[in-house]
Amino acid sequence: MEMGQLAAHHLLGKMNDYHRVNIAITAGTTPIPFYKYLTPIVKNKGYYNNVYYYNFDEIPFKNQSREGVTISNLRKLFYTPANIKEEQIIKLTIDNYSTYDKKIKKAGGLDVMILGLGCDGHICGNSPGKTKWGNQTVKLPIWKKNYKSIADTEFNGDINAVPNYFVTMGPRSIMAARKLILIVSGKHKASILKTVLEGEVNEMVPGSILKIHPNLLVLADRAAATELSPEFIQENQ
Amino acid sequence: MEMGQLAAHHLLGKMNDYHRVNIAITAGTTPIPFYKYLTPIVKNKGYYNNVYYYNFDEIPFKNQSREGVTISNLRKLFYTPANIKEEQIIKLTIDNYSTYDKKIKKAGGLDVMILGLGCDGHICGNSPGKTKWGNQTVKLPIWKKNYKSIADTEFNGDINAVPNYFVTMGPRSIMAARKLILIVSGKHKASILKTVLEGEVNEMVPGSILKIHPNLLVLADRAAATELSPEFIQENQ
Amino acid sequence: MEMGQLAAHHLLGKMNDYHRVNIAITAGTTPIPFYKYLTPIVKNKGYYNNVYYYNFDEIPFKNQSREGVTISNLRKLFYTPANIKEEQIIKLTIDNYSTYDKKIKKAGGLDVMILGLGCDGHICGNSPGKTKWGNQTVKLPIWKKNYKSIADTEFNGDINAVPNYFVTMGPRSIMAARKLILIVSGKHKASILKTVLEGEVNEMVPGSILKIHPNLLVLADRAAATELSPEFIQENQ
Amino acid sequence: MEMGQLAAHHLLGKMNDYHRVNIAITAGTTPIPFYKYLTPIVKNKGYYNNVYYYNFDEIPFKNQSREGVTISNLRKLFYTPANIKEEQIIKLTIDNYSTYDKKIKKAGGLDVMILGLGCDGHICGNSPGKTKWGNQTVKLPIWKKNYKSIADTEFNGDINAVPNYFVTMGPRSIMAARKLILIVSGKHKASILKTVLEGEVNEMVPGSILKIHPNLLVLADRAAATELSPEFIQENQ
Repeated sequence: MEMGQLAAHHLLGKMNDYHRVNIAITAGTTPIPFYKYLTPIVKNKGYYNNVYYYNFDEIPFKNQSREGVTISNLRKLFYTPANIKEEQIIKLTIDNYSTYDKKIKKAGGLDVMILGLGCDGHICGNSPGKTKWGNQTVKLPIWKKNYKSIADTEFNGDINAVPNYFVTMGPRSIMAARKLILIVSGKHKASILKTVLEGEVNEMVPGSILKIHPNLLVLADRAAATELSPEFIQENQ
Repeated sequence: MEMGQLAAHHLLGKMNDYHRVNIAITAGTTPIPFYKYLTPIVKNKGYYNNVYYYNFDEIPFKNQSREGVTISNLRKLFYTPANIKEEQIIKLTIDNYSTYDKKIKKAGGLDVMILGLGCDGHICGNSPGKTKWGNQTVKLPIWKKNYKSIADTEFNGDINAVPNYFVTMGPRSIMAARKLILIVSGKHKASILKTVLEGEVNEMVPGSILKIHPNLLVLADRAAATELSPEFIQENQ
Repeated sequence: MEMGQLAAHHLLGKMNDYHRVNIAITAGTTPIPFYKYLTPIVKNKGYYNNVYYYNFDEIPFKNQSREGVTISNLRKLFYTPANIKEEQIIKLTIDNYSTYDKKIKKAGGLDVMILGLGCDGHICGNSPGKTKWGNQTVKLPIWKKNYKSIADTEFNGDINAVPNYFVTMGPRSIMAARKLILIVSGKHKASILKTVLEGEVNEMVPGSILKIHPNLLVLADRAAATELSPEFIQENQ
Repeated sequence: MEMGQLAAHHLLGKMNDYHRVNIAITAGTTPIPFYKYLTPIVKNKGYYNNVYYYNFDEIPFKNQSREGVTISNLRKLFYTPANIKEEQIIKLTIDNYSTYDKKIKKAGGLDVMILGLGCDGHICGNSPGKTKWGNQTVKLPIWKKNYKSIADTEFNGDINAVPNYFVTMGPRSIMAARKLILIVSGKHKASILKTVLEGEVNEMVPGSILKIHPNLLVLADRAAATELSPEFIQENQ
């Protein structure tokens, strides 16, 4: 809970600006307490009309004319309960990915991005071995052998809904944000968090690039931080 | 409540910095919900050790070797319940006022000041007719005719505790802060808030100077905002 | 020369931004070395297309359909030799003054204003005794008794060209800029500079308000600084 | 010349701050016009006493108790002609490299770093194939086969002066700077500049990491920019 609250306060610190503020936010389970805390603070408050929300990856439904998995999750988690206006929601889709970086740049760049970390070290849709540091927003294939697991985690087991391609902001797009907030919780993330923060910068561990961003904030709960060397704990507390 | 919460988020936006952050905060009744909300967020959190708290006025107790009225109130309202470390509390006293502006400047200047508004238009200890726009932190006399009312509001009626002098940051010291947050609540403040925001900049209304600060945020509840012209409401929402 | 160069470097520091930058600049004789130095640096450089130039006062020609005195001077001093594009020149005129503050605000506010100081303490078109601290951009009358002197300084002696009104950004508009740079040169300015920096904040000395801006830079040559107290010299060097 | 001037103005934009400013600067031939232009602007100017200068690599002289190659070059190019005070010169040496990153962090971090680009893509002392993205300031061996060429470029042909080790800030240390300015001049750099800006992020081309910094400015003369795709020219002009 404290982590979600703290992440929310960091975000609010940027949102409380007079000018347009662009933030990229993450779906998933880690940020649930974060959105729970943020929602009543933001809901129906005219003074946050200056904030624009971006998703950083998207998996479309195959052969269905409905919004993708990420944006659907963000609606459930935050946009709908917080009553965010449609014009404040900027959508990355399978169709507009090739102009997404330019669109963001033209809007002034991302002020802050909140992102989670996968157990395999993935960030956004950047998986080990399929990631190039130089990637901007890209369209990538989904391999047949992954259909089953993706169907289970993202499509309620419906393998027919799994598409052939998804889109994601790449490391270069992520690094272009002025501030990055990495939120990590749970004992099952302890090992990868140590690798990401203390290991080599290596395309096999996509999250490892984050530590060379000039303005990275890592928010980890006690369980996720258990394996970190003492100097890293200190740094981030 | 919303106002206190919003004020707290604006403050936290500054406090969530890596470097030293200097904030001046106000005692009084208006900020009670603000401190109530802020306290559990800040309490015992090592990541706010970079924040230094300043009081902007002080009334000493006469002939008593104890801390003054303002700092005592701030302790009750915030420093003690939030467990703020002694070294993070910078005190303005009747003895150090003449070097207070230099001390602040040397520490990097005030990042933000939260202040209230008196029904007579006073801000900090700057009263109508006794204020010069050019004043930095000053020592000012308390007139005999005011002893009774000051005793009642600040010394539980003990007229013997009322001192001959008090100290306050003047308009020039206030205007030097990089951001000002004025919090105003209640119907009894509606008239003076209108005068302050819409009327002339006049030493008889000390708060009127605030509107020419390049980075002023006014947070008013509905009751305090009732008399404002529509364009001012819009501006601040 | 050093002063003009230093002022130019401060300005360039703001201009070298990726985003839109709004600067208000001054005509007159003090800034001649400043524009001389700035012109070749800026001329035909596409990377300064993000900069928008504002004048802060204007005296129209009476009964003549030509641009006013200030904008004409700025063209001669800077816009024409530096080949500034028409769309980067934002003009304050006798006709648009009432919406000028809003226009500036909507464009993101002024990032920096460079202004001079009159021997009588005036800044922009704000004269002693005719200035209210709360003034935004205003239209003010020119009194008959001043026609002769204004004709001499601004209209080559042609008294028929002197208009009945002029416009100027007021103290409140000036104070809204994020950074102010006051340039002062010459022995004849030494006395008023001392008054402005060390004296009271008083509507009879319009420049005196500047010292309560949180981000004022005073650039004075040795002659103009002769009367300043040692602590002020130190501060600004 | 224009490039050196422009680089200087960007640097001065940071240096004209009231607070401590930390900048890392480069030796070599590319920045000669830059230092030529900067020197008279900075020389004996008390208002730049807030600036601290850092070197980002160093090659010591073997068996000689004298300052290393980089710092000696910086003295010749800039520190001595500009009369920079000894206490404003922060030296990276073969002895203090292991604490250099912490020292920089404690001083508030680097505000800006100006760096050049080698024909092989090296930045600072980070050579192709010997660079790990995750490197902070490191001590690296000099291979025997390189003694001759290093003696020629850095030691006037004296092969006995070539040491066994040198030190350099690594990619991670470089990326931690808040702003990076890459200066590139000459036709012989055209090909590598294209690779760096348009190619993959690859440890075999150390400079390729720079393009994922959120605040990189590339200043190239016409000759060095000849091979760039049109979109890159536009972007940086």
